[in-house]
Amino acid sequence: MNDNELQSYCLETARRAHTASRELARSSGAERNAFLLHAAGILRERTEALIEANARDLETAPQFGLTSAQTDRLRLTDDRIESMARGLEEIAAFPDPVGEIIEGGIRPNGLEIRKVRVPLGVVFFVYESRPNVTADAAGICVKSGNAVILRGGKEAAHSSQAIVELLFESLDAAGLPRDAIQWVKPRDREAVGQFLRLDEYIDVAIPRGGESLIRRVAEEATMPVIKHFAGNCHLYIDQSADPEMARAITVNAKCQRPGVCNACETLLVHQSLSGDWLAETGRQLEQHGVEIRGDEATRRVIPEATPVTRADYESEFLDWVLAVKVVSSLDEAIEHINTYGSKHSDAIVTRDLAQAQEFARRVDTAAVFINASTRFHDGGEFGLGAEIGISTDKFHARGPCGVRELTSYKYIVTGRGQIRQ
Amino acid sequence: MNDNELQSYCLETARRAHTASRELARSSGAERNAFLLHAAGILRERTEALIEANARDLETAPQFGLTSAQTDRLRLTDDRIESMARGLEEIAAFPDPVGEIIEGGIRPNGLEIRKVRVPLGVVFFVYESRPNVTADAAGICVKSGNAVILRGGKEAAHSSQAIVELLFESLDAAGLPRDAIQWVKPRDREAVGQFLRLDEYIDVAIPRGGESLIRRVAEEATMPVIKHFAGNCHLYIDQSADPEMARAITVNAKCQRPGVCNACETLLVHQSLSGDWLAETGRQLEQHGVEIRGDEATRRVIPEATPVTRADYESEFLDWVLAVKVVSSLDEAIEHINTYGSKHSDAIVTRDLAQAQEFARRVDTAAVFINASTRFHDGGEFGLGAEIGISTDKFHARGPCGVRELTSYKYIVTGRGQIRQ
Repeated sequence: MNDNELQSYCLETARRAHTASRELARSSGAERNAFLLHAAGILRERTEALIEANARDLETAPQFGLTSAQTDRLRLTDDRIESMARGLEEIAAFPDPVGEIIEGGIRPNGLEIRKVRVPLGVVFFVYESRPNVTADAAGICVKSGNAVILRGGKEAAHSSQAIVELLFESLDAAGLPRDAIQWVKPRDREAVGQFLRLDEYIDVAIPRGGESLIRRVAEEATMPVIKHFAGNCHLYIDQSADPEMARAITVNAKCQRPGVCNACETLLVHQSLSGDWLAETGRQLEQHGVEIRGDEATRRVIPEATPVTRADYESEFLDWVLAVKVVSSLDEAIEHINTYGSKHSDAIVTRDLAQAQEFARRVDTAAVFINASTRFHDGGEFGLGAEIGISTDKFHARGPCGVRELTSYKYIVTGRGQIRQ
Repeated sequence: MNDNELQSYCLETARRAHTASRELARSSGAERNAFLLHAAGILRERTEALIEANARDLETAPQFGLTSAQTDRLRLTDDRIESMARGLEEIAAFPDPVGEIIEGGIRPNGLEIRKVRVPLGVVFFVYESRPNVTADAAGICVKSGNAVILRGGKEAAHSSQAIVELLFESLDAAGLPRDAIQWVKPRDREAVGQFLRLDEYIDVAIPRGGESLIRRVAEEATMPVIKHFAGNCHLYIDQSADPEMARAITVNAKCQRPGVCNACETLLVHQSLSGDWLAETGRQLEQHGVEIRGDEATRRVIPEATPVTRADYESEFLDWVLAVKVVSSLDEAIEHINTYGSKHSDAIVTRDLAQAQEFARRVDTAAVFINASTRFHDGGEFGLGAEIGISTDKFHARGPCGVRELTSYKYIVTGRGQIRQ
């Protein structure tokens, strides 16, 4: 494809999605659920074909320089396909967001006002992740009445395409327009740039992947973007914390799954706990294989810790590494989090109500946890259903982005001939 | 100021606002209301001084090439100052949005989840309008816990600065940081460009003025923008409409105040009403001084009408001009609105419930009116309090942007030591 061909291909794709989005906005929740349940069914039926397509991706994985861990994440198995299917069934079971009356009432002049949830329109979803994200993202978008342009990573190209072809069949079966899902083959990077200029047809861009992808999309997009930047999450242990609870939450927030965005990256400890409590916590973390990078006070009780740097405080390690700092007050902890944090998930362990309230109010983050692990920051755990990402923005959607976060609203005002005086 | 000085001035201004926004987010609703009520009080006390400052703007108005109508809008009078003061009192009377629990509940694992409204942070408000907008915008921002950087038009520079100086006194009196309101003198256009790059400190940009200003802000801003583009509003008269009601709404939507965004710009008439009804409606509109631009069918019954063009359908006249088109069906009306409309306010007059439902669902607009004038599209009329604009975006805020639309939310999750399995 030369530049002109690419440009008209992208324009045509976006237009088709836009037209389909108008149809989708009029579809019933029953039709959209029929799509999801049909897709879950044929994913299970065609497990073998999907595993075959996936084999081609696994073959080419070394060419893309994937590590064995990355290759393993790419792999489709019976279990993983079953869990994709169950994911779509869970999306179907979630209440229909489209048409929900968010609020309403009657004005003094008799006008009846309803604020009604409507789809955003067209979502441009750019992702680098595993093939199951293809099914998830398409499911969430269609459930919320949005058309979606999927632009997945080249590493999973065959698997994703095989999944999308099943989804087309399910759109047909449910009587929904095929154009509701647009699949953009992961050719050159230029296609992304083209789509990001088409704000006339695309209502929101959602990048999911490394920070460089997200920054690129945020910079080039002419439409709004829902961003999921780093998850540099903090845990503050207050003077009044229950010592056992504090230790259990620390170990869980760091070790239960260190490679995910809501794992803890920096532990802030009140100085009154910088003796035995910190020493024992350090021992337990090290038993789990965690490397500790500590400030001076930390290294006094955990001698194996390496000196922590400013760069460590800024890092989302996504690994068996934890920065540890001893602070003299709640103020110092809050100041640290608001300086270095990424506004994702931040927790306090305390028995003191006033400290809990102060922390919850003043820490600028999508989700504050009081006496609970940051690992609970998740659409499913919050009861919001499947999510397309966790927004670290404050605008439009913050925290887990599920089907409701992919909607807008309109006002419907019904009168009996009222005119304005 | 040279380039370097301008750059550091803008950076310093944004930083101060950012710091103040943190303090403001912790302030009580009582403190923020005390600011509003104090400001209302001293606006009234200092009416004379304000009128003096305004006189200097009126003197320079001819230099800026303002028409006499524009100069009149610039003028401050006792009445207009009184209504500014009342505006601030109304904002004070509105419930505090900060800290409102939007929703919440207890998860099966015992975690208590609250979704709590919080301020966005720092608003950059660029406007070209009358001096009263200065007081309104500052009032709405402070009420919602946001710091604001005000960048008004040069035409109202003296009046706006005089108002801002009163607002500083009121911030002091209420114990709120003076830096919560930043006043940027309307020097060169470059300052706007500088601020639009400071997304590290500014959370949202809101332009209010002509389309070129809005386009410029939307293109250059690195932070989210709440846009109020054109109000190209439509009124569709269905076959089943009550003829008298349809005529009264038509005249009201066009003539009650033609220079505002929610006035009607195009009338779509079902062909069954293209005879006597349209002829008589045309006569009444012409008596009000409305120039009609009509399609062929319209000109058959309103011979004085000039032929309507595509450009007319695309226009927000903001004047005594109305485009009129006869359509054969609801579908054609909806198609016309979704093609030419600006997603602001669109109305149907009908007695047929199914037609009303279809119109409300399929017209892609911020506010649909059924048997009521488009002129009701307004924060006050909707019961949302004072507004900083009407958003024609679908993202974050749609329709009237009052104090609640200037907020985000955070999740506060309280446990008893829960960890993730």
